[in-house]
Amino acid sequence: MTVGLSHTLDQAGERQVIHEIVTAAPSALNGDDAAVLYPAAPNSRTVAATDMMVEGRHFRRDWSTAAEIGQKAIVRNFADIEAMGARPTAALLAIAAPGETPVDFVRGIAQGIAERCAVYNAELVGGDLTRSDSLVINVTAMGSLGGSGAPLTLDGARAGQKLVAHGKIGYSGAGLALLQRFGRALPPELEELWPLIDAHCAPTLSPGRGVIARATGSTAMTDNSDGLVRDVGHLAQRSGVRIDLDRAAIAPDPLLAAAGAVLDIDPWEWVLTGGEDHTLLATTYKAAPSGFREVGRVMRGTGVTISGEEPRYREGWEGFA
Amino acid sequence: MTVGLSHTLDQAGERQVIHEIVTAAPSALNGDDAAVLYPAAPNSRTVAATDMMVEGRHFRRDWSTAAEIGQKAIVRNFADIEAMGARPTAALLAIAAPGETPVDFVRGIAQGIAERCAVYNAELVGGDLTRSDSLVINVTAMGSLGGSGAPLTLDGARAGQKLVAHGKIGYSGAGLALLQRFGRALPPELEELWPLIDAHCAPTLSPGRGVIARATGSTAMTDNSDGLVRDVGHLAQRSGVRIDLDRAAIAPDPLLAAAGAVLDIDPWEWVLTGGEDHTLLATTYKAAPSGFREVGRVMRGTGVTISGEEPRYREGWEGFA
Repeated sequence: MTVGLSHTLDQAGERQVIHEIVTAAPSALNGDDAAVLYPAAPNSRTVAATDMMVEGRHFRRDWSTAAEIGQKAIVRNFADIEAMGARPTAALLAIAAPGETPVDFVRGIAQGIAERCAVYNAELVGGDLTRSDSLVINVTAMGSLGGSGAPLTLDGARAGQKLVAHGKIGYSGAGLALLQRFGRALPPELEELWPLIDAHCAPTLSPGRGVIARATGSTAMTDNSDGLVRDVGHLAQRSGVRIDLDRAAIAPDPLLAAAGAVLDIDPWEWVLTGGEDHTLLATTYKAAPSGFREVGRVMRGTGVTISGEEPRYREGWEGFA
Repeated sequence: MTVGLSHTLDQAGERQVIHEIVTAAPSALNGDDAAVLYPAAPNSRTVAATDMMVEGRHFRRDWSTAAEIGQKAIVRNFADIEAMGARPTAALLAIAAPGETPVDFVRGIAQGIAERCAVYNAELVGGDLTRSDSLVINVTAMGSLGGSGAPLTLDGARAGQKLVAHGKIGYSGAGLALLQRFGRALPPELEELWPLIDAHCAPTLSPGRGVIARATGSTAMTDNSDGLVRDVGHLAQRSGVRIDLDRAAIAPDPLLAAAGAVLDIDPWEWVLTGGEDHTLLATTYKAAPSGFREVGRVMRGTGVTISGEEPRYREGWEGFA
């Protein structure tokens, strides 16, 4: 049985809504008091992270589709798993929502989650559903860290290493700025800028990059979630080093420059402080791993510089700013 | 550095609040993009469950202390881990809260979590903090299922088994009814009824009972979270059996009877539909495991009966009721 698009959570009831979620994102591990994950490889360790998204703060229903919200919830969490050098394997979803929320919206979130989990060969293994005045979505991700080697931690960067990156930097911030100006009604002549909005509403992350970086000798990693200067600064502070970003390597690309011209905003702001790109940032003595590019150097000292100079912008995105 | 009791989350800022949480509930596994759990025993599997609590629906700040709310959040989750026959090892905490929430309140939640985790030798290994109009607390629990035997599932009950229980039944429902009548201002002459309120605000669960039940041959287990008839009915339905509860074994004890007399409520209502006790309910062919008592029998058929008769009350607590 499926319920109509116009049904609300109140009308459908808890059991039916959960049925819709597990139909959209099926897993043989789901459906009991707790999920028992598949047996892990010998010597591997379980990795876990959790992330809460609040409507109006982390997403807006007039800016993102339900599927995009689900996709974003997964990528935010899986990037944290990848940033340890681990492989995401499972997710748990808790939703608090008003009773008048359409069932179709919750089903869409589950579809977006299933879509992104499939890319990682991961599954939605359990969850919780409850009533609330605000719409709040919590995803917890679990992963597997293979072998007995160290994970990629924030304190593992050493002077003499390269800083390498996998993924776009600044796209999410630019997409948010476009949404703030135009909503989803981007003028037809600006159609080329849609990838920036997509990067904000449903960021992507190629699976396995964290594992590859760890396997090829990286020692530290994080993802660009709160803003480049803030996240790299966190890595530098925890490792007791200075990180010098290469101005040319991180300079706004033509798409960011075009969005900057349309909105009359310096695109460096999105690059340095935008965050939410979930770009992986690693340090290594070796050549940039497959899929990564060199974007800076680790040096003695403290703080973050850009080709030796102070960053033009440094404020990042903070949960309680 | 610690901040004063009167500080709000807005005044303290994200970093300071997180510092308060990890100080109250410390773990060497915390503090990176994701938590890498301790290496698991060979042949064990990871178990995970998640649960969201919303202010006004799952707790009230004028009824529960912050520590009690943290304790309840842990027990709700750890009971689900135990109900698989597994041992809880770690928890993740995500909080969405208004900026005017006192830091002391969040610290209290973390203290309650740490206190209950300590009983299980588990740790708070990570989390998330964000701003929201509503106060929402999400805890995800992880555990370890030892050996290669089957977990204790909802579909494992078989005709001819006993139903056994560990923990009080009906106390949480009675405590809620007392709070609804008196708030925390329980008249001095009713002081003996405080254990019922405590059972509602900060339920307890002795660690290791799920593991013991699995080790001694139980085949199915759940916990009493939504109401006895509903939860046992779920077990019966998933296993394709009838479960007959023993009227004498589950009859209201003198404390429940006293509360019922004070409130003019039939205490059977709390026993059969109250829920939130997180009593473990298992089925076994053998003698009741240590800490468990026999409360019924598994038979051919469908549904739930009480010494052969229809339950007087059967509605339970549902997330979207």
